[in-house]
Amino acid sequence: MRFFEYFSKDDMETIHDATMTVLESTGLDIKYEPARDLYAKAGCKVDGERVYFPRSLVETEIKKAPSQFTLYARDPEKNVIIGGDHIAFMPCYGAPFVNCMDKGRRQGTLEDFQNFAKLAYAIPYIDITGGMMTEPNDIPVEKRNAERIYAAMTLSDKPFMGAGTNEVDAEETIEMASRVFGSREEMAKKPPFVSILTSLTPLAYDDKMAGAIMAYAKAGMPQLISSLSIAGATAPVTMEGTLVVQNAEVLAGIVLSQLVREGAPVVFAGSSSAAAMRYGTLSIGAPEMAVNTAATAQMARFYDLPCRGGGALTDAKQVDAQAAYESMMSMQMATLSGINFVLHSAGILEGYMTASYEKFILDAEICGMCKRIKRGEALTPEKLAVETISQVGPGGEFLTNMHTFKHFKEEIYAPILEEKDNFDAWTSKGSVSMEARANAKYKEILDNYTPPEMDAAVQKDLDTYMDTIRKG
Amino acid sequence: MRFFEYFSKDDMETIHDATMTVLESTGLDIKYEPARDLYAKAGCKVDGERVYFPRSLVETEIKKAPSQFTLYARDPEKNVIIGGDHIAFMPCYGAPFVNCMDKGRRQGTLEDFQNFAKLAYAIPYIDITGGMMTEPNDIPVEKRNAERIYAAMTLSDKPFMGAGTNEVDAEETIEMASRVFGSREEMAKKPPFVSILTSLTPLAYDDKMAGAIMAYAKAGMPQLISSLSIAGATAPVTMEGTLVVQNAEVLAGIVLSQLVREGAPVVFAGSSSAAAMRYGTLSIGAPEMAVNTAATAQMARFYDLPCRGGGALTDAKQVDAQAAYESMMSMQMATLSGINFVLHSAGILEGYMTASYEKFILDAEICGMCKRIKRGEALTPEKLAVETISQVGPGGEFLTNMHTFKHFKEEIYAPILEEKDNFDAWTSKGSVSMEARANAKYKEILDNYTPPEMDAAVQKDLDTYMDTIRKG
Repeated sequence: MRFFEYFSKDDMETIHDATMTVLESTGLDIKYEPARDLYAKAGCKVDGERVYFPRSLVETEIKKAPSQFTLYARDPEKNVIIGGDHIAFMPCYGAPFVNCMDKGRRQGTLEDFQNFAKLAYAIPYIDITGGMMTEPNDIPVEKRNAERIYAAMTLSDKPFMGAGTNEVDAEETIEMASRVFGSREEMAKKPPFVSILTSLTPLAYDDKMAGAIMAYAKAGMPQLISSLSIAGATAPVTMEGTLVVQNAEVLAGIVLSQLVREGAPVVFAGSSSAAAMRYGTLSIGAPEMAVNTAATAQMARFYDLPCRGGGALTDAKQVDAQAAYESMMSMQMATLSGINFVLHSAGILEGYMTASYEKFILDAEICGMCKRIKRGEALTPEKLAVETISQVGPGGEFLTNMHTFKHFKEEIYAPILEEKDNFDAWTSKGSVSMEARANAKYKEILDNYTPPEMDAAVQKDLDTYMDTIRKG
Repeated sequence: MRFFEYFSKDDMETIHDATMTVLESTGLDIKYEPARDLYAKAGCKVDGERVYFPRSLVETEIKKAPSQFTLYARDPEKNVIIGGDHIAFMPCYGAPFVNCMDKGRRQGTLEDFQNFAKLAYAIPYIDITGGMMTEPNDIPVEKRNAERIYAAMTLSDKPFMGAGTNEVDAEETIEMASRVFGSREEMAKKPPFVSILTSLTPLAYDDKMAGAIMAYAKAGMPQLISSLSIAGATAPVTMEGTLVVQNAEVLAGIVLSQLVREGAPVVFAGSSSAAAMRYGTLSIGAPEMAVNTAATAQMARFYDLPCRGGGALTDAKQVDAQAAYESMMSMQMATLSGINFVLHSAGILEGYMTASYEKFILDAEICGMCKRIKRGEALTPEKLAVETISQVGPGGEFLTNMHTFKHFKEEIYAPILEEKDNFDAWTSKGSVSMEARANAKYKEILDNYTPPEMDAAVQKDLDTYMDTIRKG
């Protein structure tokens, strides 16, 4: 499959030029002195918090970041390449609430987080275990990061996401991971996790995010450097203008990472969308979000960087038709455009507010369908099947043909939530909706869950660490 | 926006070559003697019903069909160009059943057909009034075509769809349309309707379809020449092999049309998908359908012909999450791939079996979102808004900026089913699902419906025709 190119190459140059003008003339507010010092040392003009970026500096620094890197899993078969023509799906992130059909909407707990980690481990279409799939509100704030990282590393053997909160949590994540994955030096070579750091849109970085970017870059740990600009609120109401703001923010962050450590792995991450103008709030289920996803993928390719965008994103409050068509829109656009890292690939409802169990399963289905499309077709004689067509001939049937028997398993996507019956059969089974099927499926997965094996000494070391945290 | 190219140009050549081999060596069964005679006269080898197509004949004849044409509406502002980089959305077609929240699933009636025609007229994202949106089961079979065509021409002033049933209905459609749109000669220059004719897959045409293709071609009326091959049932289980079967069927039909009348307007129409292997039935919500849609668009461009594909297609039995994500998948793929004519853009449930009122509205929303994406972005200084970004600066807000006020209406898509509230506001309004909102919306549209004006003499002439039919 070839990637969708929404814009022309000339368009990319135009957006780049506009971005350079903004970085040079308008600049960004960087609310963290060590970062400003670093920018100044590299040749940026600094005036109070405001930093102005020379075009040549930006263009030079972003070239130093690698065009792809690998995330190393506890199970090496689950290593994930970020970049090139690869795509990786990662569940929801940062939702304060959870929702399921049985208990309704409520504050997320550590148990919910653990359940989502188990689902991410068990579902083959999810490539990376989440890092903050929901907020564990029943745990004291200062202990949440440790609990999340512990759960992500023990309940799953896929790569995971580290803290995207601040420098202290970043350090703790690195420390905890080193007990499982080896020394800091080893992890810089074979990073097991990735974190997300975001600008303070428009055109700023706060102290926490700038601090965490520097900490992760120093350690050589990969990070998504992300902007969520809102057309009509934190950026111009045009998607063209919003692209410029997003681009300026992401590039400023990437420059910071490279000034700390040349070659630090980063992901060009855009998740900008439009405001719902009647409410003045962010809409992540808008078609403008799909436009931004396509543009983000192209912009990152223009800079030869891995990219993050898209996701199973919706403004819907329940797992209804709106939730589904909005989610498919951005997921399919991410897939076709060549997004490498799809954050929020499963579970999101109400514009990042809620992680839903049923939506998690539905979205995993969408991940599977998108992977089938992306796989592409192989125009070999066996696949083109001209000989088989000749054998069967006009008016014949292929269902019982050996060619069908030989290939059907790998050729036709098998849905997680099989629902292809006819109406009468479906009715006779109780007219079960997709949401109810998803409800049954997530329970089935959790009931059958068994944790991946972990070396006993490593487990003990980690448990000792957690004992200290939990007692502290 | 540039079009998505799933395959490379070499891939297109490979599929074309395989198709030519099938047409030359395996051939098609053409169950209509006048068609076989025409093929034979043009140089095809004919053996019983079997027709073998020389490669040079196929390649020569398909070049004679126009690369685009216009459908002329009663209201000239609603003329629709079919081809080039245009897209046109058309509602569901051929569903024997209808469904709505109030009455459930039941056999379609003429009133249902009329209601769908009114919705198609009223909703701006629908470009063409349907031709067989549901079967009017309460009308005697022999009178159904006249009632449908009458409703489509009087209740809406958009282009419409003619009979795709047989030669007699094709003739009746041309006759009825001539009372509104002028003589047959005038209509051949300015066609007001398009019809769909389908192969008898695999690799055959029955007498009705071949007869109708010849009748429409003779009259110079546009037609979709369509194949619905099913991977694993009527075609090889691989999408590559299914493409070859689809391609052979469509090209054989197009050759027939051009042999009848050189330059007769046709649309290269593919809607092949995969079997749901567990049931051995067609699945139209499969990711393989999206692959076929992309391939169909590219194949038609390869032949420089307008194309039909995609649609708001689903296997779901109700307007749930499955219905929505499957529909968005094929609609967005059609949009990005450059499909020109999207049949079944609104209303379909259960794999073509049912036309749903609520789904019609939801799908119209998807049409609107797809049109927003397809519109593309204009990288003008005003849209890039570098000056506005500079004015607002880091930490500022754009909501109250004059640039936002000036552009928001055309920049940000305004949903038909506005649902961007926060959770508490949504709950306080009764937690209304998207399906229920769609239910209210279709009733609102029908309640506010007023028919487009029609010349009194034309109306009288048509009514006289219908009186004869109804009494007959």
